[in-house]
Amino acid sequence: MTEPLRLGIAGLGTVGTGVIKIIRRQAALLEARTGRTIQISAVSARDASKDRGVPLGDYAWETDPVALATRDDVDVFVELMGGHEGAAKDATEAALAAGKDVVTANKALLAIHGQALAEQAEAAGRVIRFEAAVAGGIPVIKSLTEGLAGNDVTRVMGVMNGTCNYILTQMEATGQGYNALFEECDRLGYLEADPNLDVGGIDAGHKLALLASIAFGTKPAFDNVQLEGIQRISLDDIRHAADMGYRIKLLGVAQRTARGLEQRMSPCLVPANSPLGQLEGGTNMVVIEGDAVEQIVLRGPGAGEGPTASAVMGDICDIARGFRIATFGQPATSLEEAAPAQTSLPAPHYLRMSLQDKPGALAKVAAALGNAGVSIDRMRQYGHSEPTAPVLIVTHKCTSQILQTALEDLAKTGVVEGEPVALRIEEL
Amino acid sequence: MTEPLRLGIAGLGTVGTGVIKIIRRQAALLEARTGRTIQISAVSARDASKDRGVPLGDYAWETDPVALATRDDVDVFVELMGGHEGAAKDATEAALAAGKDVVTANKALLAIHGQALAEQAEAAGRVIRFEAAVAGGIPVIKSLTEGLAGNDVTRVMGVMNGTCNYILTQMEATGQGYNALFEECDRLGYLEADPNLDVGGIDAGHKLALLASIAFGTKPAFDNVQLEGIQRISLDDIRHAADMGYRIKLLGVAQRTARGLEQRMSPCLVPANSPLGQLEGGTNMVVIEGDAVEQIVLRGPGAGEGPTASAVMGDICDIARGFRIATFGQPATSLEEAAPAQTSLPAPHYLRMSLQDKPGALAKVAAALGNAGVSIDRMRQYGHSEPTAPVLIVTHKCTSQILQTALEDLAKTGVVEGEPVALRIEEL
Repeated sequence: MTEPLRLGIAGLGTVGTGVIKIIRRQAALLEARTGRTIQISAVSARDASKDRGVPLGDYAWETDPVALATRDDVDVFVELMGGHEGAAKDATEAALAAGKDVVTANKALLAIHGQALAEQAEAAGRVIRFEAAVAGGIPVIKSLTEGLAGNDVTRVMGVMNGTCNYILTQMEATGQGYNALFEECDRLGYLEADPNLDVGGIDAGHKLALLASIAFGTKPAFDNVQLEGIQRISLDDIRHAADMGYRIKLLGVAQRTARGLEQRMSPCLVPANSPLGQLEGGTNMVVIEGDAVEQIVLRGPGAGEGPTASAVMGDICDIARGFRIATFGQPATSLEEAAPAQTSLPAPHYLRMSLQDKPGALAKVAAALGNAGVSIDRMRQYGHSEPTAPVLIVTHKCTSQILQTALEDLAKTGVVEGEPVALRIEEL
Repeated sequence: MTEPLRLGIAGLGTVGTGVIKIIRRQAALLEARTGRTIQISAVSARDASKDRGVPLGDYAWETDPVALATRDDVDVFVELMGGHEGAAKDATEAALAAGKDVVTANKALLAIHGQALAEQAEAAGRVIRFEAAVAGGIPVIKSLTEGLAGNDVTRVMGVMNGTCNYILTQMEATGQGYNALFEECDRLGYLEADPNLDVGGIDAGHKLALLASIAFGTKPAFDNVQLEGIQRISLDDIRHAADMGYRIKLLGVAQRTARGLEQRMSPCLVPANSPLGQLEGGTNMVVIEGDAVEQIVLRGPGAGEGPTASAVMGDICDIARGFRIATFGQPATSLEEAAPAQTSLPAPHYLRMSLQDKPGALAKVAAALGNAGVSIDRMRQYGHSEPTAPVLIVTHKCTSQILQTALEDLAKTGVVEGEPVALRIEEL
């Protein structure tokens, strides 16, 4: 018989306990599928006294995750603590240095330190697997890295933050505003400790940076992701979008352009009847386009105990089966430094602004846009009770760079109150 | 440097030439990703003189696929000929006997002879990979076998025959009948040489048998798939279904029940606004449900040169990377013989029949159904010019066994002309 595969699991939150439950419940199935016993040698978490609903008495307890990661009876370090500095990083580095493979759900750690960790792992002949870090239970890393390995990937897109998608779909469904729904998410425990990770698009941006690296053979470059959160989306925007047959989604797009690697995570209008437009609540969706496969759409739960633990187990089973693959699908030392695109491919845009109610204001707006090279497809001024008039504009296709110039010129007209909301319209 | 991976490709139709194009176009990418050069040593096809749009001069030519499969300079036999007997089977067996790995797109071969081939392969330490055999470019075999390896799979469903889905969606979109669209598909080359493979549900049934084997750890058992084609679906059925908020799809469902393994491939009504209901044309969709992951939906092109070649290349890259896995996800000798379910889980059903226009006919139908234990949710008799009256019935939930008894009793009433159309309504 082959030796058992011995795990050290650091972090016993939702995902950690989910993994332990699967290993306890499905021991026979896992052994039939991988040919090895998958066993837990040791676990670690901050609080040893807490009841987590799973018996932990069979496993050694380590208070220090670094000690856990380097134990002789651990083959695979399973990092489920989170955070891109401190314990998670230290323990991952220590695990690799001690010759362990690593399975992690930590998108921030890999988006920020992935290149260095991958180089360390590969120099030591170790693997880092992270299916659970992107889009929860959806096997998207595996699909992209392995199933679609014959493709020159042309574009990767996705809705990958369930909390944002929940807020946006609930705004339309219930007519509640952003702030009310943000508070509801807070009460329901849907938000990260730092909510800006969710609503600011950072968490989803980490995921996009990882997908982009695998898709395009580039070093993960989270700093180059153009980030915009959903905090400024109003009920009006949701309704205007719906009127025009669109929904607003926090959408990530990564694509190689003649001007560099475009990576953006921002609220966009997508056709309401498209697969992305129809995505409700906490469900995630990733769209992968390649020169051979055309388009693949993967949909599933983006978070939660079972789905995330399922992804972690997929990685553990791969290691048990002896699958060895470079962290980002090709050797880390061969990944290119991708020049970030200074502008995006042209697209129509949605603009909403508040206009001072004085003669010629609308003409000044139109002139500013036109002079910057932004041509107007549709424009509407709404009736209003406030001293400012809400104005809605849909532009013809323009690049983000040109739009940026136009927005700066708009500010100079002196007739626009506050900052306009500008959202890309993504035809899929 | 690691040795190149040397392929022998048998069958130079759409998929075979697609694979050759990818290998020629993406040589550097494939090498970066797998760490090995992927090269073609030899090819074979029936007609050596045909221009296939790719240069073949670099490769040795074999007229006999068995000779190709056993060449010393071939590591992987790529079987893209099709057919479950004859050359494809002989060459696959010969390849395994000669110590080659096998990559195939041949659903019929594996659905019918998969168990024996898997046992032969595993006894010889060889792998058989077949991503391209199911759902074209969608990495569904990989997702199920590897990504979801931590799950006890509860149900697998899918629309996996693009031609049938094209006919069914075009019936609704254009108002043309089945026969006209069948002829259109024939002209467009969408049909298999034996069209019953498509419209009779056999091709999709082969795919379902393969998914069921992997999902449930059972020997592939195509003979146990309850098969029903789309030939009897009329425009009326399509319209009635639409009136009630449904679409008709050729849907495969495999699930383990207390009464055995249920495997059926048949036209079903699915909610029009569900992901399966919205699937248009030749696109495929597979839904996988597991105890941990909840539900994953995979969508993509079910056929065509690029997508199918993409799937073949994924398998080839896995072999190049050294991934070794049992054909059906666990050792063939450990697969169970699944008892086929004699009946399906209860569901509402749609019935359409032609009733003789005489007093008491409808009462006889209602009585026959009621006596068999089928209770009626809705019933409608339409106005008509023919001597028979079209009657539409939606039943409450019943098993296929009870429905079968009811249909036999209906025939005995002597008031029903011909055989009723009975379709399951699948709530997703």
